[in-house]
Amino acid sequence: MPSYTAPTKDLQYVLHDVLNVSASDIPGYDELEPDFTSAIFEEAGKISSEVLAPLNIVGDTEGCRLENGVVRVPTGFQDAFNQMREGGWPGLDMPEDFGGQNMPYVVGTAVGEMFSAANQAFTMYQGLTHGAASAILAHGTDAQKATFLPNMVSCQWTGTMNLTEPHCGTDLGLMRTKAEPQGDGSYKLTGQKIFISSGEHEMAENIIHLVLAKIPGGPEGIKGVSLFIVPKFLVNADGSLGERNGVSCGKLEEKMGIHGNSTCVMNYDGAEGYLLGEEHKGMRAMFTMMNEARLGVGMQGLSQAEAAYQNALIYAKDRLQGRDVTGAKNPDGPADPLIVHPDVRRMLMDQKSFVEGARAFILWGATLIDQAHRKSDKDADGLVSLMTPVIKGFLTDEGYDMTVQAQQVYGGHGYIEEWGMSQFTRDARIAMIYEGANGVQALDLVGRKLAQDGGKHVMAFFNLVKEFCSENKDVEGMEPFVEPLKTASKHLQAAGMYFMQQGMKNPNHALAGSTDFMHLFGHVCLGLMWARMARASIEALENGTSDAAFHETKLATGRYYMARRLPATAMHLARIESGADPVMALDAEAF
Amino acid sequence: MPSYTAPTKDLQYVLHDVLNVSASDIPGYDELEPDFTSAIFEEAGKISSEVLAPLNIVGDTEGCRLENGVVRVPTGFQDAFNQMREGGWPGLDMPEDFGGQNMPYVVGTAVGEMFSAANQAFTMYQGLTHGAASAILAHGTDAQKATFLPNMVSCQWTGTMNLTEPHCGTDLGLMRTKAEPQGDGSYKLTGQKIFISSGEHEMAENIIHLVLAKIPGGPEGIKGVSLFIVPKFLVNADGSLGERNGVSCGKLEEKMGIHGNSTCVMNYDGAEGYLLGEEHKGMRAMFTMMNEARLGVGMQGLSQAEAAYQNALIYAKDRLQGRDVTGAKNPDGPADPLIVHPDVRRMLMDQKSFVEGARAFILWGATLIDQAHRKSDKDADGLVSLMTPVIKGFLTDEGYDMTVQAQQVYGGHGYIEEWGMSQFTRDARIAMIYEGANGVQALDLVGRKLAQDGGKHVMAFFNLVKEFCSENKDVEGMEPFVEPLKTASKHLQAAGMYFMQQGMKNPNHALAGSTDFMHLFGHVCLGLMWARMARASIEALENGTSDAAFHETKLATGRYYMARRLPATAMHLARIESGADPVMALDAEAF
Repeated sequence: MPSYTAPTKDLQYVLHDVLNVSASDIPGYDELEPDFTSAIFEEAGKISSEVLAPLNIVGDTEGCRLENGVVRVPTGFQDAFNQMREGGWPGLDMPEDFGGQNMPYVVGTAVGEMFSAANQAFTMYQGLTHGAASAILAHGTDAQKATFLPNMVSCQWTGTMNLTEPHCGTDLGLMRTKAEPQGDGSYKLTGQKIFISSGEHEMAENIIHLVLAKIPGGPEGIKGVSLFIVPKFLVNADGSLGERNGVSCGKLEEKMGIHGNSTCVMNYDGAEGYLLGEEHKGMRAMFTMMNEARLGVGMQGLSQAEAAYQNALIYAKDRLQGRDVTGAKNPDGPADPLIVHPDVRRMLMDQKSFVEGARAFILWGATLIDQAHRKSDKDADGLVSLMTPVIKGFLTDEGYDMTVQAQQVYGGHGYIEEWGMSQFTRDARIAMIYEGANGVQALDLVGRKLAQDGGKHVMAFFNLVKEFCSENKDVEGMEPFVEPLKTASKHLQAAGMYFMQQGMKNPNHALAGSTDFMHLFGHVCLGLMWARMARASIEALENGTSDAAFHETKLATGRYYMARRLPATAMHLARIESGADPVMALDAEAF
Repeated sequence: MPSYTAPTKDLQYVLHDVLNVSASDIPGYDELEPDFTSAIFEEAGKISSEVLAPLNIVGDTEGCRLENGVVRVPTGFQDAFNQMREGGWPGLDMPEDFGGQNMPYVVGTAVGEMFSAANQAFTMYQGLTHGAASAILAHGTDAQKATFLPNMVSCQWTGTMNLTEPHCGTDLGLMRTKAEPQGDGSYKLTGQKIFISSGEHEMAENIIHLVLAKIPGGPEGIKGVSLFIVPKFLVNADGSLGERNGVSCGKLEEKMGIHGNSTCVMNYDGAEGYLLGEEHKGMRAMFTMMNEARLGVGMQGLSQAEAAYQNALIYAKDRLQGRDVTGAKNPDGPADPLIVHPDVRRMLMDQKSFVEGARAFILWGATLIDQAHRKSDKDADGLVSLMTPVIKGFLTDEGYDMTVQAQQVYGGHGYIEEWGMSQFTRDARIAMIYEGANGVQALDLVGRKLAQDGGKHVMAFFNLVKEFCSENKDVEGMEPFVEPLKTASKHLQAAGMYFMQQGMKNPNHALAGSTDFMHLFGHVCLGLMWARMARASIEALENGTSDAAFHETKLATGRYYMARRLPATAMHLARIESGADPVMALDAEAF
């Protein structure tokens, strides 16, 4: 069975050595001293390794079962969910007013990585609750907040998001679910939603569905979509649970992975619902959830890659097969461990350099969110909004590839379910699809985010890279970082320029290169993170750190990323600059 | 449920327009007139689409079951297997002396693509039989051939290959299975083999296991390995079946995919076996099987990509979602089909250009095998031997990626098992692992094949590309093919040069770039195939073909490959030229 060890040391390194959080003037960050975050991470790491990780393969093997309308979760899930609630983990970064601990988002993100790495399917129950609670927090009335948030923050009640219908996913304007006003402020919802994660289960007393639907007579298409709160059990005025509402799970989907999470077809048969936010402004309210969810999904890409990598590394050190061509490393044994072989090393270094770079990227993104929310910093908000599709799309594409590579390290055993490597791959696969398929992320990036606020945020990003490079160009040891980063950043700028010039003539010149652009952008971001980590480690070494080996390893891992992964940017640029013609040459009928 | 349509037209195009097989002087090729191969392909296509494809998802869902030592195959498999036998398909390219039809290997390969695309797990039962029969044909005594081949050629009996043991896969020198001589020419085999595809099942009267084992007292390691024929039922002198032999299935593995094929732990408890080939030369004999099997596995990469692509294309034309940004294409409908979107196009074009290029590559390889076998042409043998790891490693890595992309076209439905797209991905995953994991293919390519016969074969490959480019550089319409091919080929040569120069100093400089080299080589091969197809289609158009649309589509698809996929070669070269240092910088303990 695979194991999971929480990367608490590396999380500490990113927060304190690289991002220097406790020196930040973001409200709440002054508390984030190393000892304080270390205590939280150790605790979260413990529950991740000891409680959640052992249930991962159980969830995969047993899956969920629908019995007379009730969804049974895998053995052990209920106990673990109770432990999560008792530990107060679901409310870690939620407001104290509703029972949370009001920690910065960056702390919730670091902890979330561990939970998700240990057991993605399980962690989704509370992850979706967090997203739904955030939407109510942002758009709910005081009464709605008082009614729903305390129980959602504690995960006594869980939450869901209901967007997709059988005939519409990305194109939500085609939606058919109706919400008819009842004259008393409430609505009756009728329709069917599919792919509803955690849609029904037995672990919580109540489930609060956030549902997109159309109010009859409203505007056509996406402009006529509103968001509703639809509880599984109606809530009485005194807060106690009332009648069962007209919402039920019609079917559980059989999926490639995340078997431990219940993916439901939800039927709304005149279910009572309450408008969340304004009429016909449902997409705006939903995007509060979606943006948070997209960062969370990007984190799943990282977390599955991390869990898979940890096990591939153990196997590569343990499994004896073949000899080091430069001389036996285990001369007394029958063979050398796999890790001596350069091609196995390549796979491990790909994974290691991705995981550590992605961790820094996501945590940096989380500090920007804190800066946006806690300091109302619009520039930070714009920058993280620009990078959100990159975090979601690039990290899940790459994270998936890394799980495939980790599986490959195991050879034949990687294909056998009991070794657990297949599950990391199968679970990681969904992250490329849900919360907006990665092609939609690329479209969001190129079609919307690049030009947002007159292109101000992407310019800010370029300046940030430029300033970093000019500040560090003469620092000893930084050359293997600064030069490749400059080159990669130039490729990104050239791609942006190509889109501006050619996209005016034909938007397809931009759209045909959107996925390549997202990946190009992702590599520049990870290159920047590695350069920042290199700088931090060089400083630590100069300051006579007691842990020189750790920092030397960081530098070597970073040099690998710059030398071996960053050359991808030139390829992406070449593809982008080939324009729309090769892509769009054929009529649909010619395929 | 996914469907499968046999690509008979495209197979005909490659054989006749591109490879011009019936004009070849390879013995047996004169028969391969278009009408003749068309009749075969139509028949094979029919059984693929109508019999094998509908059983694909059945095999995945039901899997195999071990009941009291007997393996039950999925519903419908036995009937389909009988139909395959009745049609004479298993012996298509086997000698007439043993009941085969003696067709060229290229015909068997074309037909094999269809069977494998329709149902990989099912087709493995006969594919492994073919491989085992080929080994007996090449290394068996006349008596062994007479005893085993007629029933194996007809698939009355099936075959297996037994290499892996729990503690050894790639490093077969660690093998523990023993074969003790009985003094009567037979041996008693004792040991355990794992990952034995088709190891036990109820569809054949007998199963002929080819088993690697060590004769006690022989040389240490890989030099002391011999190959044995171990039948499930002993065969009496009159050819009838005798006693059950001491070999049994101890366990069926639960795998990520190919559920319809029985992957067995095989226990040998003093089983009677007969030496195949010479004592201690088992690896040589086994490689007859392995090389054929590696081409077959490369074909699985192509075939799963083809099957997945066909369904992604249907979905992309059918599913209405969003609008073409350049103007509605389906203005009377609620939305446009997915295929209007450039990023969806990109995915479809990646798949289409891979599949058609890979098909040409494999069929070209098959003609080289025919040339080697039927004309005893050592140069052809050397060239296909050089390309075998590329066919296996590159086509299965890329083929897998294409199934992932096809799944992505489906959005959320791609993750739901009933739509069948997950199965293509899960089934395709094994091809990167078995018959030598792709890292081992890369090692074989760089560590052995490049330098074989003094580097003669790789020089022959470069000359072939060079000659093609100089012959075609002034042909109208060939510029978008010749220029990128030249550049890519230069990258490949530069990489080879780097290996020669740096590998002398430290072999790790070559090995650390082996997988990148395999991919670089693969892109050059597919680039060459596209250039050859372009030339063939330009000629067809000049000659006033009645099917101009088909040839225009070929040219557009080829231009896509050259513009969008071939730029990967520069990235692979950059990675290779960064050498071993970034890869090997860390001590194993530092990870």
